[in-house]
Amino acid sequence: MAEEKELNQALPEEDSDIEARHEKRMEEMSTLLSQRRMKALQTLLEEQDEYDVAEFLSELPEQQMAMVFRLLSKEQAAEVFAELDSDQQEYIINTVTDTELGGILDELYLDDTVDMMEELPANVVKRVMRIATPETRALINQYLKFPENSAGSIMTAEYIDLKKYMSVREAFARIRRVGADRETIYTCFVTSRDRKLEGIVTVRDMIMADEDAEISSIMDENVIYCTTTDDQEDVSGLFSDYDLLAVPVVDKEHRLVGIVTVDDVMDVMEQEATEDISIMGGVTPSDRPYMRTGVFEIWKNRIPWLLLLMVSATFTGIILSSFEDALAVQVALTIFIPMLMDTGGNSGSQASVTVIRSLSLGDIEFGDLFSVIWKEIRVAVLCGCTLAAAGFVKILLVDRLLMGNESVTIPVAAVVCITLALTVLCAKVVGCTLPMLADKLHLDPAVMASPFITTIVDAISLLIYFGIAKTLLKI
Amino acid sequence: MAEEKELNQALPEEDSDIEARHEKRMEEMSTLLSQRRMKALQTLLEEQDEYDVAEFLSELPEQQMAMVFRLLSKEQAAEVFAELDSDQQEYIINTVTDTELGGILDELYLDDTVDMMEELPANVVKRVMRIATPETRALINQYLKFPENSAGSIMTAEYIDLKKYMSVREAFARIRRVGADRETIYTCFVTSRDRKLEGIVTVRDMIMADEDAEISSIMDENVIYCTTTDDQEDVSGLFSDYDLLAVPVVDKEHRLVGIVTVDDVMDVMEQEATEDISIMGGVTPSDRPYMRTGVFEIWKNRIPWLLLLMVSATFTGIILSSFEDALAVQVALTIFIPMLMDTGGNSGSQASVTVIRSLSLGDIEFGDLFSVIWKEIRVAVLCGCTLAAAGFVKILLVDRLLMGNESVTIPVAAVVCITLALTVLCAKVVGCTLPMLADKLHLDPAVMASPFITTIVDAISLLIYFGIAKTLLKI
Repeated sequence: MAEEKELNQALPEEDSDIEARHEKRMEEMSTLLSQRRMKALQTLLEEQDEYDVAEFLSELPEQQMAMVFRLLSKEQAAEVFAELDSDQQEYIINTVTDTELGGILDELYLDDTVDMMEELPANVVKRVMRIATPETRALINQYLKFPENSAGSIMTAEYIDLKKYMSVREAFARIRRVGADRETIYTCFVTSRDRKLEGIVTVRDMIMADEDAEISSIMDENVIYCTTTDDQEDVSGLFSDYDLLAVPVVDKEHRLVGIVTVDDVMDVMEQEATEDISIMGGVTPSDRPYMRTGVFEIWKNRIPWLLLLMVSATFTGIILSSFEDALAVQVALTIFIPMLMDTGGNSGSQASVTVIRSLSLGDIEFGDLFSVIWKEIRVAVLCGCTLAAAGFVKILLVDRLLMGNESVTIPVAAVVCITLALTVLCAKVVGCTLPMLADKLHLDPAVMASPFITTIVDAISLLIYFGIAKTLLKI
Repeated sequence: MAEEKELNQALPEEDSDIEARHEKRMEEMSTLLSQRRMKALQTLLEEQDEYDVAEFLSELPEQQMAMVFRLLSKEQAAEVFAELDSDQQEYIINTVTDTELGGILDELYLDDTVDMMEELPANVVKRVMRIATPETRALINQYLKFPENSAGSIMTAEYIDLKKYMSVREAFARIRRVGADRETIYTCFVTSRDRKLEGIVTVRDMIMADEDAEISSIMDENVIYCTTTDDQEDVSGLFSDYDLLAVPVVDKEHRLVGIVTVDDVMDVMEQEATEDISIMGGVTPSDRPYMRTGVFEIWKNRIPWLLLLMVSATFTGIILSSFEDALAVQVALTIFIPMLMDTGGNSGSQASVTVIRSLSLGDIEFGDLFSVIWKEIRVAVLCGCTLAAAGFVKILLVDRLLMGNESVTIPVAAVVCITLALTVLCAKVVGCTLPMLADKLHLDPAVMASPFITTIVDAISLLIYFGIAKTLLKI
C-alpha cells in the first residue's frame, strides 16, 4: 500500500485533459504489470472503473489478459467482462473453469449476457447455456428471439417493480432488499397483480415524499413506454426528447417485460450514427471497431457498393459515347466535364445529407416533401446563379486568358455556366427527393447519400450539357 | 373532468408504435383547443410531459402559442419554455409581464437559461438580465464566458454537494431540503471547505448503506471528472464509456464549479453527429432544424464549399486540356472518364468515412497512421483487382459487343482497368491519410470527407489514366 501511494503522488494531480488522465491511469497499470508487482496491481485494479480495466486488458496479449482478469474480484470481473470485445470474452470463457464462469454469469446483467451470446460461436454458446441456471437459460432463450435492433433486444429484466398499495417506507425496504443486482433503482415500475404496467415512480419522488405516503399517490400514470418490437432508434429518441433515465418495455398485453436504461441508449445512439455515416459513405456498417476488422471483411463491406456504382456509371459512358461526334468537333467541351459532374454531385449530396439527417432526427417527414422541394429549388436558384457567375469569370480568366486555351470561347463558357445552374437545380431536387422516397418505402434514407446521388446527377448533368451545347454551339 | 375521461377512453389503449402514440397525444390537445375547451385542455396539459407540450405549442400560431403557454403552471411553464426554440422563447419573453418572466427564470435550470441567452437578440437579453436576481445574473455572466462547445458551456450549477463528515441520514435530509431545484439528486458531490472535489456518492450507495454510516466511508474517491475547458465531445465520451449519469466539472484549482448531466450529453451526441454528417456532406453545420432555416441561410451554409470545390476542379480541367490531343485521337477514352472518377471518388470516400468515424469514436489515433495505411493498401488491392476484373468483362461485353462501339478495343479496356486498380489504391490511401493528418493539425477530420477526397482523387485518376494511355496506346 505504501509503495502504491508513493506512485500516486509522483504523478501531478491535475492533468491537461480527459485523454491525458485516461492515459495516465493506463500507464500506472502497465508499469505495475511490467514490474510484476501483482499485489499492487490488484489493489490498483480494484479502484479503477470497469471501463478502464477493460481497456487495459484489451491491450494485453491474450494469455496475460486472462491472467490479469483472474486478479479481479467476482463482481468486478463480471463488470469488466461485459465491457470486453467478443473475441476476448470468448478467450476468457475458454480459459476459466465452469465454477468461475458460473460466477461471472450470475453477476452479468441479462442484456450484457444476451449481447455476448449473439456474438459467440455455437460451441461456446453451448457451454455457457449448460452452466447458466435454468432460470437464466430460459430468459436468454426468450431474449434471443427479439428482432435485432428492437427494444426487446436491448432491454434488461433487472428492474425494480413496486405495488400501488406499498408505502414509501416499504418501497425503500424493497429497494434495499433487491436493489443490489438491479441495473437501475432510480426509476421504479408499478405493476398490477397480472404484471400490467400501472405507473412509474422515481426515487427522487420517493425521497421527497412522506415515508407513509402510498406509492399510488406519488406515481406517474402518464408513462412514456415502448413495446418489445419498437425500433431501438425510436426508443433512443424517447430518451433524448423526454430526458429519461429508463423506459419500460411492455408486450402486446401491456405487461411489463423489461426496461431499457440510458446507458444502453447512448450505445444505440453511437451505433446508429455510425451506421448512418457508413451507409452514407457507401460502406456496409460493421459492428467491430476498424482496427479489429479484418482486411477481407472490410473488402466485403465495400466491394458490393463499388461494383454497383461502377455498373451504374455505364449510363454516363453511354451518354458520352452517343455524343462522341460532338466531342470530336469541340474537344474543349471535355475539359469541363469533371467540374460539372463534381459540382452537380456536391450540390446533390449537400441536399441529401441535410434531408437524411433531418429525417433521422424527426425534423421532417414524408408529408413535408413539397415544402422541402420548394425550399431546395429556391436554394438551388441562389447557388446555381452564384456558381454560374463565378464559373463564367473563372473560365474566361483562368482557362482562356491564363492557360491560353483558344478553344474556350465565350459561347463555350456560356454553355458550361448554363449547364452548371441547371445541374445544380436538378441535383438539389434529386438530392432531397430520393431520401424522402426511400424513407416512405421503409428503406434506409442514408442509402440515398452522395454515392448514389452522384451517379444519378452525373448522367443528368451530361444530358443537360450536350443538349445545351447542341443548341447553342450548333454541333 | 367527466368529458375528459370520456375522451381518453374513446382512444384505444394500445397503439402500434411510439410515433402513433405521440401523434395521438398531439391530436387530443389540438381537439380540445379547436373546441375552445380551455379548462379541459389545461387539465390535459398538466398531465403531459413538457416535451409533448412544447411540441404542441411549437405547431401553433404565435399568438395562440402564447395564450396556451399561459395556461401552464409556473413550474411546468419553465420546463416547457426550456424545450422551445429560441424564436418561440423570444416571442414569449416579449409577451409576458416582468413578474411572469421572473417566475420562469427562477424555475429554469441555469444551463437552459444560458442556452437561451446565447440565442436571444441583445435587447431581449438586456430585459432578461434586468429581471433576473443578482445571483442568477452573476452566474449567467460567468457561464457565458466559457468557450462554445466546452464542458463549462453545457454544465449547470444546480447540484447537490455534501460533506465528508455527514451521516447518510443527514445527507438525505439535505437532499430533501434542497433537492427540489437540483437537476439531479442521484449523484451527489462531496466537497471540502474550500470547495475542492473530494469524491462522489450516489443515492444508490446511500440507500444501500446504513443510515448512520459516514459519507466518507461510502464515497468513491476515484472520480471521473472534467474541467471547464474540456471539449463537450470528450465529455460525452466519458458518459458512454463509463455509463455515468452526471460528471463533475472542476476549475484549474480542482474546485467543483458545476456538473454535466446525461440528458445534456445526449443532446451533445446528437449535435456532434449532425455536425460531422453536415461537414462530411460539404455543408456548414447549422443549429436550427432544417424546416426553420431560411433559404438565404441554407445558401450561406452551402455556397462556400461549392465555390471552393468548383475552383479546385480547375486542376482536372487543366489536366484534361493538356491531353486534348490525345483525346482527339482516341475519343473512346473520354467515355470512361466519369466511371473512373466516380469509382475513385467512391473508393476514397469509403476509406475517409470509415477513418473519420473511427477517429471521432476514439477507435484510432494519429499513432495508428501506418497500420491504417497498410490495412487500406491491402483492402485497395482486393477491391482494385475485383473492380478491374469486373470492369474488363463489362467493357468488352456491354460497351464493345452490346453497344457496338468499335473504338473500344482490348488495349483501351486494358488501359481503363489498370487505371481503375491504381486509382482505387491511390484513393484509399489518400482517403485514409488526409482525415488523420487533419486531426493531427487540430482541424475537423470530417472536412476531409467525400467532397474533398473526390476532387483530389479526380485529378490523380486522370493523371494515371493518361499516363497509362500514352504508354500502352502510344498516343
